[in-house]
This record gives sequence, structure tokens and C-alpha cells, in this order.
Amino acid sequence: MHFTSEQRLDGGVLEREFTLGEIPGILWTPAAASAPAPLILLGHPGGLRTMYPRLAARARHAAADGFAAAAIELPGSGERPRWAAAERARADLRRVLEAGEPVGDEIIDALILPLVEKAVPEWQALLDVLLSLPGIGGPVGYSGGVISLGVRLVVVEPRISAAVLFAGSFVPRAMFEEARQVAIPLHVLLQWDDEGNDRQAALDLFDAFGSKEKTLHANLGGHTGVPQFAGDAAAQFFTRHLK
Amino acid sequence: MHFTSEQRLDGGVLEREFTLGEIPGILWTPAAASAPAPLILLGHPGGLRTMYPRLAARARHAAADGFAAAAIELPGSGERPRWAAAERARADLRRVLEAGEPVGDEIIDALILPLVEKAVPEWQALLDVLLSLPGIGGPVGYSGGVISLGVRLVVVEPRISAAVLFAGSFVPRAMFEEARQVAIPLHVLLQWDDEGNDRQAALDLFDAFGSKEKTLHANLGGHTGVPQFAGDAAAQFFTRHLK
Repeated sequence: MHFTSEQRLDGGVLEREFTLGEIPGILWTPAAASAPAPLILLGHPGGLRTMYPRLAARARHAAADGFAAAAIELPGSGERPRWAAAERARADLRRVLEAGEPVGDEIIDALILPLVEKAVPEWQALLDVLLSLPGIGGPVGYSGGVISLGVRLVVVEPRISAAVLFAGSFVPRAMFEEARQVAIPLHVLLQWDDEGNDRQAALDLFDAFGSKEKTLHANLGGHTGVPQFAGDAAAQFFTRHLK
Repeated sequence: MHFTSEQRLDGGVLEREFTLGEIPGILWTPAAASAPAPLILLGHPGGLRTMYPRLAARARHAAADGFAAAAIELPGSGERPRWAAAERARADLRRVLEAGEPVGDEIIDALILPLVEKAVPEWQALLDVLLSLPGIGGPVGYSGGVISLGVRLVVVEPRISAAVLFAGSFVPRAMFEEARQVAIPLHVLLQWDDEGNDRQAALDLFDAFGSKEKTLHANLGGHTGVPQFAGDAAAQFFTRHLK
């Protein structure tokens, strides 16, 4: 991991851009921490630059609660190299959405499954490095979408002990089976009127999770309209489980 | 309204039993209030004596947040006179549940609609009296089930400005139309594995509510298994809207 820039944000939060191998990322750490900070991995749909304002807002909220937070670019997004199959899947998706046709399982699988395969080891490598830094300790939470990435990550990665998952992306059928293997406390956010989201699939996925503690918070509004009180409730969930 | 007994609970909360005409009820007021306290009406499924431990716990929580809280017995429950049609509907319900048959619309209508018709004016009369007491002011919230009672009450009663509704009782089809008329902020609690509850009906009812702010909190567990953090979140909802 190489830090490439750093700046202090309002409230004293330290924001550092870094590269992990070829992967760009951002790390936020709280202003003053007496003990190593617990860590929240900030999931996102890809495109660190585009997502920056929302990620930085979530990170500042996390830092105010005493958490470090970090995100890396997804494979095939932002400045990272595309691969042909993913580009084809994205083009297929655009075509059926524009035609108003239903999005078939093949498109969802082609779009999501290789992304999850590639991304999960990268987030695990990120975790290896972050947990070796002096100011950062455990426990670790995962927060955000892509929901399938979150599901796979919390199934294979025992260092993650609680997750806030955003139901807002297509879910391959195979993930429903993996969802049954999830055992950590979950807090699932569902935007009830999310244009790009299949509400029933989100409810089915919530039903499938194997966790003994799982909570669904559904709110009105579209994909980016998560109300502030819902963000606050998600933060309280992490405080309850990670501190 | 005649107060029939009073006692101080832990934390200084004043608990007073009363009768409103022939209707028994309980009023809880916070220990020390500098200004008139906002009020939460505590809905319940009937049977004040049986429900007392859970009602008192909710009232103590409300009082700790600075709210007064009150409940009255439902028509046909506890010590209040039965009426033949309601007894028939209860017997019909027991029969189909024991036979493992689906609960038909006629039974649900017979069970719930007359109860709502009778109870709503009683809760409105309670509100008239409570809001004339020196220590109690507005705004007013409704919290609990019977969910159809809550829906009708918040539609016809403009003095109620926010509601926490428990999805945990049968809902007559007619209530879905009334739900569209609900315009106040809503916080709906759904126990995902509630044996006696139709999950899909609860989701459909949530979808039908006309409110611009509505939130669904679904948690694992059965009817009486609402986790403490879900109760805390409901309390925060009232604090956000009534204080």
C-alpha cells in the first residue's frame, strides 16, 4: 500500500488516497483516537471519483462515531482496466433496460458473478494491510452495495463481524444460496421505490439470510434517497456491534 | 375521568389507573416535567391486565424520553362487556386456526371492523380528557396495534401527528383503502416470523400508506419478540417527530 496524497477534512478526519498494487483506494481515519479504531469497509457500485461525495459523507459520519473507513475501486470501474465479458454484460443490460424488457438471469450472472469473484480477494487483501496499520484495529464491518459482494465477503471473511447491506443492485440466483450461510448480524437498507431494484428479490434475499439477528429498514424514495435518519440508524447498528 | 389509584414506579414515573365512563385505563406521566409533556397513546390487542407488564415497560421507556403515555381497555376485552357478534367471530377464528384452514375475509371483517368502529371514538374521548389535564400537552403519537385501529384513528383524528404501528394482527381489506388516506409520518414494526401474522399483507399495507415519510423495520422473531434496539428506534422516531 502506497499513500499518494493526504488532506484533513472538517472535523479533523484524515483522508488519504492510496494504491494497493494497481488498485486505487481511500482511507479515512478519525481525528484523535486513543485506541486503534474499529474499521468499516465502504462498499459502493464502482467509480470512486463519481462516488466520492457520498463515500466521504459516509466516512465522516463513521469517523465521528470513532471508526476508520476505507474503500477501493471495483474491478472494471473508474480508472481500472475493463474486461470484455463485463463490457458485454453492461451493454446487454443497457439494451434490455432501454427496451423495457425484463433483465434475465444470464445478464445478471454475467454482470455480477465475475465482479464478485475478482473483487472479494482484493477487499480481503485491503483488510490484511489496513489491520496492520498502527491506528486501525478490529472489529470490522462492511457497509453498502454491491450487495452480492457484501454477501460473499461476509461469508468467506471471518474478520468481518457485522454488515449493513444496501439492497439496490441485481442479485444472481446463486447468491440466495450463499445468503443462507451468512451468520453475522445484518442491517439491510431497502429503498422502497428504487427504480433499478427488484423489491421482491430484496425481500426474498432478506428472508434467505441465515443470521440470527437481521433487520430490514425500508424507506420511501429512490436509489440515492436514503433519509438521514436511516443513515443514523445504520451507524447505531455498527456502534452496537463493533464498539 | 376518575382516578382510582396511583403509584410511583422506578424512576419516579407516576402511574394512575382511571375510569373513563365505564372504560378502565392507565395513565403514566414522567417524574419531573417543566413543560406539558407530549403524549403517546399505547395501542394493544385488548386485555389491560394481561398486557400490563409490556404496556408499563413501553410507558416507562416513553416517560424516560419525556412523554406521557396512556392506554384504555378495548371494547369486549378485559372486564368490559362482550358482545355476541365479536364472540362468534373469535370462536370462528379459533376453529379455522385449529383446523389449519386459511382465515377468510368474513372472519377478519367480523373480528376487526366492529372493534375499530367502537374503539375509535373512545380513544378520541380519551384524548379530549388527557389534553385538558395540566401536565399533558401535544403533540400526540399513537403506538402499537391493533394496526387497523391505529390506521382509522390517525385518519380521523388530526391531533395525532406521528404513529408507530405494529404489523401483527389481521387486516380487513377495507383498511387498505383507508391506509392510502394516512398522511402523517409512520414507523411500522414487522416481526418477520410472526406466527399469527400474514407477512405479505403487512408489506402490502405498508405499500398502501399514503404518508410521505414511512419506514418499515422488520426484525427476526415472533409476535412478542421485538428486539430492544427496535423499541429504541421506535422511541427515536417519536422523539424526532413529537419533540
